Amino acid sequence: MYIIVVYDVNVRRVNHVKKFLRRHLHWVQNSVFEGEVTRAEYERIKAGLREIIDENEDSVVIYRLRSQPLRDVLGTEKNPMEDII
Amino acid sequence: MYIIVVYDVNVRRVNHVKKFLRRHLHWVQNSVFEGEVTRAEYERIKAGLREIIDENEDSVVIYRLRSQPLRDVLGTEKNPMEDII
Repeated sequence: MYIIVVYDVNVRRVNHVKKFLRRHLHWVQNSVFEGEVTRAEYERIKAGLREIIDENEDSVVIYRLRSQPLRDVLGTEKNPMEDII
Repeated sequence: MYIIVVYDVNVRRVNHVKKFLRRHLHWVQNSVFEGEVTRAEYERIKAGLREIIDENEDSVVIYRLRSQPLRDVLGTEKNPMEDII
């Protein structure tokens, strides 16, 4: 499956979340990662995030898609997808 | 179609982008909006964003999906979707 992860977490945990997600997904821009994952990877990502965030204060949304969606980039692409495809 | 919009723009333009997107989409969390739009609305959103952002400095990614994707929320949902569905 293909996932897009967006997070809005306290500044104290931002770097930890970013470092964790970078091990699994492609960094798109500030607070956004995406990538193709297996079901097992997806579960590991969810479990890992739950350990890092404060569930009372932080928010992470994971969109689950069947395949990579169409995407339009306006302005500058901070980290072009072509680099990894 | 269903779109997810994520933006990473200079702080001087953040409020303008947010105010503009709020007219068309559901605010999810910091720098993320989503919603069902017609093709015409989608084109208007793209054109409107192009007018607001500095294309040399800012970045906006629009994911285009056929329908609303599955979504998991970890932690606190900043602005629950149920409020608008």
